[in-house]
Amino acid sequence: MRIDRLPFVSAEPEDLLVYGYDASKLEGRPTALAFPGSTQDLVELVRLAYEEGLSLVPRGAGTGMVGGAVPGEQPSVIVSLERMNRIMEIDTDNLVAVVEAGVVNGRFQRALKDKGLFYPPDPASLNFCTIGGNVATGAGGPRAIKYGVTRDYVLGLELVLPDGSLTTTGVRTAKGVVGYDLTRLLVGSEGTLAFVTRVLLKILPEPEQVMTLTSHFPDARTAAEAVSSVIHSGVLPRTLELMDQHSLSAVEKFRPSGLPVTGALLLVELDGPGYVVGPDLEKVKEVCAELGGTVTVARTSAAAEKLWEARRSISPALYSLRPTKINEDIVVPRSRIPEMLDRLDALSRESGILIASFGHAGDGNIHVNIMTDRTNTEEYSRARALVEKVFVHTLDLGGTLSGEHGVGLTKKPYLSMELDPVSISLMKHIKKVFDPAGIMNPGKVFPD
Amino acid sequence: MRIDRLPFVSAEPEDLLVYGYDASKLEGRPTALAFPGSTQDLVELVRLAYEEGLSLVPRGAGTGMVGGAVPGEQPSVIVSLERMNRIMEIDTDNLVAVVEAGVVNGRFQRALKDKGLFYPPDPASLNFCTIGGNVATGAGGPRAIKYGVTRDYVLGLELVLPDGSLTTTGVRTAKGVVGYDLTRLLVGSEGTLAFVTRVLLKILPEPEQVMTLTSHFPDARTAAEAVSSVIHSGVLPRTLELMDQHSLSAVEKFRPSGLPVTGALLLVELDGPGYVVGPDLEKVKEVCAELGGTVTVARTSAAAEKLWEARRSISPALYSLRPTKINEDIVVPRSRIPEMLDRLDALSRESGILIASFGHAGDGNIHVNIMTDRTNTEEYSRARALVEKVFVHTLDLGGTLSGEHGVGLTKKPYLSMELDPVSISLMKHIKKVFDPAGIMNPGKVFPD
Repeated sequence: MRIDRLPFVSAEPEDLLVYGYDASKLEGRPTALAFPGSTQDLVELVRLAYEEGLSLVPRGAGTGMVGGAVPGEQPSVIVSLERMNRIMEIDTDNLVAVVEAGVVNGRFQRALKDKGLFYPPDPASLNFCTIGGNVATGAGGPRAIKYGVTRDYVLGLELVLPDGSLTTTGVRTAKGVVGYDLTRLLVGSEGTLAFVTRVLLKILPEPEQVMTLTSHFPDARTAAEAVSSVIHSGVLPRTLELMDQHSLSAVEKFRPSGLPVTGALLLVELDGPGYVVGPDLEKVKEVCAELGGTVTVARTSAAAEKLWEARRSISPALYSLRPTKINEDIVVPRSRIPEMLDRLDALSRESGILIASFGHAGDGNIHVNIMTDRTNTEEYSRARALVEKVFVHTLDLGGTLSGEHGVGLTKKPYLSMELDPVSISLMKHIKKVFDPAGIMNPGKVFPD
Repeated sequence: MRIDRLPFVSAEPEDLLVYGYDASKLEGRPTALAFPGSTQDLVELVRLAYEEGLSLVPRGAGTGMVGGAVPGEQPSVIVSLERMNRIMEIDTDNLVAVVEAGVVNGRFQRALKDKGLFYPPDPASLNFCTIGGNVATGAGGPRAIKYGVTRDYVLGLELVLPDGSLTTTGVRTAKGVVGYDLTRLLVGSEGTLAFVTRVLLKILPEPEQVMTLTSHFPDARTAAEAVSSVIHSGVLPRTLELMDQHSLSAVEKFRPSGLPVTGALLLVELDGPGYVVGPDLEKVKEVCAELGGTVTVARTSAAAEKLWEARRSISPALYSLRPTKINEDIVVPRSRIPEMLDRLDALSRESGILIASFGHAGDGNIHVNIMTDRTNTEEYSRARALVEKVFVHTLDLGGTLSGEHGVGLTKKPYLSMELDPVSISLMKHIKKVFDPAGIMNPGKVFPD
């Protein structure tokens, strides 16, 4: 391979092994790995790979849940953007920043905090995942209810197309309607259209205060009802996270932090100037009390951090219940969450398979965890069959199959449950516009 | 023509005349007019037109400023969506609404207000323009600084493609990352890709209070500096409108309302619960006072409405200065507004042609009005030549040629000043995906 001559390309067996899988636990075998250090490096690589007929799989930090960074059948180069990790610019006057794709979300957040600024999108993997990966998946996070998702912060992109040509999209301003919106077309395109090398982001002033509180309810259904009531009270919390009983007890087994192990819990954050947060808190207390909820305010930042550690540990903690987790990130309209939870309970009872639910209840985004054991073939296949049933109920309630993880490999068999053939055909043709040779992350998103 | 047989098609000469132009004052001559009353009507029309080789020009209320709804050279059917004007659904639980494309923005706003709800995008033509037209242009408005633009509220679309096929895009939830974002690709596509027949919109609870105030400054530069200072104080007003001296004096000539006629004025709206608006006002007063601004609060809703009437009358009032107005809606990063105003002043001085500036200073979106007289050929050609100079300065300061009007016919000669050839080529190929026959609003956006 001619690409071997590039100083930033490796074909070492241990590298090929390590970079062959991602957080989906799916695995593939790349032909080579590339670690470009600049857009110029990437352009050189892409041109050579194009000539050699190699496919290209862009990779951020490999924290994706749907196998989007796992190589497929075609001879593929995994292109890790991790070395392109410079924060190029933070414009405090106009509240925009420019970062390279490999900048880790959490590092960017800390750099902004030092200047009194704020970048809201906060996927649970924020201390590892990259902004480029966030753009590729259209990542969300707990703060989406108030602040929106990655899509709402990406103002422009620098792109390397699969033929090695370079372009920039978007504008440095919130308004801008010159030509088609290539920027948002790329957000959530899962590395199938082009490489994102730089990202122009909208940023915000840091809120003066953040207050963290929990409200404990007798059951998940009531907690879900409280979510709608809070929003209708006129208060818009920046997070409204739901943990069901299974999630709570898993966390307490895994890393005890004094959470209740019965009922269900809402984890709520309020932010803004002091003159907003105080009255907002009173409203939330009132609304929760009406539904039998007990509100506890985290009085110190350490206490608040402990609650968030518990929240972030749900995902690993669930493995203490069963060894294998099938994790889907469905969304339903907020008012349908109670019904969705009822239907998940029914599916769990009928199948005898545990389903733990938690997630971003404020925007209807529920992480549904079907807990099973991959080595028990019979049970595992029944568990897998539950996925489609969960999706049927999700769509029946007006929802979507993925709120923030994307389609990748794991959800592509279900794509046509949500999208009609006309839309899928348009998307496949748009892919051909960007990638006529079909070498950008092939085999992802669209069923063959 | 076979389309003549359709009961909702007209070829009456007076109809052809009236629907041949739009607010750009450009004019064309359509072959026929169609007024479909439903998606089914439209599908039938599109199929027949496709077979007959007729082009299709979608039209909302014809309030567009760039000639997007004006027929070009090809034999074209103007398709007015005005009869498709039903508000299909207002979901108060999940804060989404479904409207047909022909629903007038202001009517939708009033229907929501009756339910204590709120749809922020408010172009100056809101009492005439349609939601479908807002989607086509990616319309903005004064409230964009706090609440964003049309793009930020469109969750999904029903589309009729130029071959008559039907598809729906998007989801009813804020999160959703299944497939490419066709929804946002369509927003701002100026009727060149497909017909938008229904729009799924995010809506908000109505803010408890709105407070309107003005701050008068000695000159436009200082007023523009105050805009940045207000935002850095942590207050996010829902509008921050700037009127320069020319705009103020034109309004006072046209319809006297007691505004100052020297210096420059900021028109500011604060909204939220009472416990937010009060302290926010104190901050704004303080910031403006530091820069020599004098704040006056509108104590009654009638007084506030009078200010907004004055603001909305700038555009017609400018005709009292000169008979012809060349109106561009450039955007620059907020901190560059003072410099842009200086450069506009210099252009005006050098050319001897009056330039009046006003607009959405909060988001850097300035309506630059080059005032001239079309019948004075020599002056008019110098005035037209100023447009390109304005654009050169706009781009030099990191801005964009259009914040909310779009490209249409009037800006297409300048498209390649902002977009590189790779992006333009991608866009043209995307157009071919949706419209292989090239019959959707041909001749718009892209230079030939």
